[in-house]
Amino acid sequence: MYVTLQQAQQAIEAAQSKAAEIGVPMNIAIVDSGANLMAFVRIDGAWLGSADIAMRKARTSRYFDMPSGELGKLSQPGGSLYNIEHSNGGIITFPGGIPIKDAQGEIIGAIGVSGSTVENDNLVAQAGVDAL
Amino acid sequence: MYVTLQQAQQAIEAAQSKAAEIGVPMNIAIVDSGANLMAFVRIDGAWLGSADIAMRKARTSRYFDMPSGELGKLSQPGGSLYNIEHSNGGIITFPGGIPIKDAQGEIIGAIGVSGSTVENDNLVAQAGVDAL
Amino acid sequence: MYVTLQQAQQAIEAAQSKAAEIGVPMNIAIVDSGANLMAFVRIDGAWLGSADIAMRKARTSRYFDMPSGELGKLSQPGGSLYNIEHSNGGIITFPGGIPIKDAQGEIIGAIGVSGSTVENDNLVAQAGVDAL
Amino acid sequence: MYVTLQQAQQAIEAAQSKAAEIGVPMNIAIVDSGANLMAFVRIDGAWLGSADIAMRKARTSRYFDMPSGELGKLSQPGGSLYNIEHSNGGIITFPGGIPIKDAQGEIIGAIGVSGSTVENDNLVAQAGVDAL
Repeated sequence: MYVTLQQAQQAIEAAQSKAAEIGVPMNIAIVDSGANLMAFVRIDGAWLGSADIAMRKARTSRYFDMPSGELGKLSQPGGSLYNIEHSNGGIITFPGGIPIKDAQGEIIGAIGVSGSTVENDNLVAQAGVDAL
Repeated sequence: MYVTLQQAQQAIEAAQSKAAEIGVPMNIAIVDSGANLMAFVRIDGAWLGSADIAMRKARTSRYFDMPSGELGKLSQPGGSLYNIEHSNGGIITFPGGIPIKDAQGEIIGAIGVSGSTVENDNLVAQAGVDAL
Repeated sequence: MYVTLQQAQQAIEAAQSKAAEIGVPMNIAIVDSGANLMAFVRIDGAWLGSADIAMRKARTSRYFDMPSGELGKLSQPGGSLYNIEHSNGGIITFPGGIPIKDAQGEIIGAIGVSGSTVENDNLVAQAGVDAL
Repeated sequence: MYVTLQQAQQAIEAAQSKAAEIGVPMNIAIVDSGANLMAFVRIDGAWLGSADIAMRKARTSRYFDMPSGELGKLSQPGGSLYNIEHSNGGIITFPGGIPIKDAQGEIIGAIGVSGSTVENDNLVAQAGVDAL
């Protein structure tokens, strides 16, 4: 029911490989099913400010059991969840956070990636999820 | 002048029933007339991140003595209360928070509900208010 | 692995009964194994400031898998964990928080009680734990 | 001048080995010379609340370029740095945080470990430092 450290590191390694492949230094965070930090790495040269964002994306994905970017579609001006970002001490609602599920489809944690365009962030996060 | 714990629990039970009826696990919070937390429940399986939002919706409704969603109409870009969400340590201005009144119409607290669409959140909050 | 809402409410009801028995209004909080709030009640007339303390005691007990008061023995001036209270956004290290275990002895959450002397707080928290 | 991710992971692996050797699950954090988080792991079963403490110990060690426990000797009641723990958003001044130096003796980061007694925390942190 909880992502293990071994799983977390497996996901981070896969995400690191993808980041290396596309040539962008990333911050990568994994939280468990209680939204508590499990593992984190900042690749050399990655933006300092993206460390916090990677952790918030991971938490956000577990807080609402969906990719962080899905929330962002609803939190725009005029949207039904406008300014939801003010909750939970500050959440991040653009892409780069994705829930992690076990073989039975139960959510056991989440990954958050930050350091490049949100497309790249999400690509790297997905590589981490796919490794499990 | 203050909602009692008995009233708070009565409202929460009615809200829980409505949540069960529509089949969506919710977070439900009640604050008193001082905007201080009185009671809270998270239904099994409800979003973790919605606990904080339910409490903020309840506080927001009592802070301004109106449904939380009314504020959201005024806090949009160009609106008269643009980004009021930054006040009070972070408020939530989409629907799901409703003031609770006594028989004389005086506000004695508020309910906040989060866990689904804002329409469902508001429906469940209203069920809680109607129980009193 | 997670305390359920039904268990949380059972623990709260037992704690409420004990609080009524000793005649002291209490704030009672339950967190799950991820240290996330599951349920909360403030008995009419209980100290407003104790709501936050009850929630922090519950979190603290789960953060370190021990009664909150055990930490306080080590966090005194000259103690090995002096001023640990500054961690995790502020923790509470006097008695009133106790882990909740399942039948196999695994910790599935924690209860936190605040509103009277720490002896009474702990007595009421223990009543909540014993109900499960 | 900055610890690299490779060095950070090398230190974490050595710390993990030492933690396994003494049989205590730990939280281990590495910050760079800017006191920004570089890498973090929570060993399965480690205290949830020690994640935050490990990160604070690492930051504290770099903030003041000394083992975290050295500060604690000066922050006691009557001491010259009484309650310095209130600074920097909350620092931790008991043992378990140690600066990391390069071959020339320049500080390039710090390690912070939390999850057991401060003696064990410090032992595991030292193992991480010694690996570099």
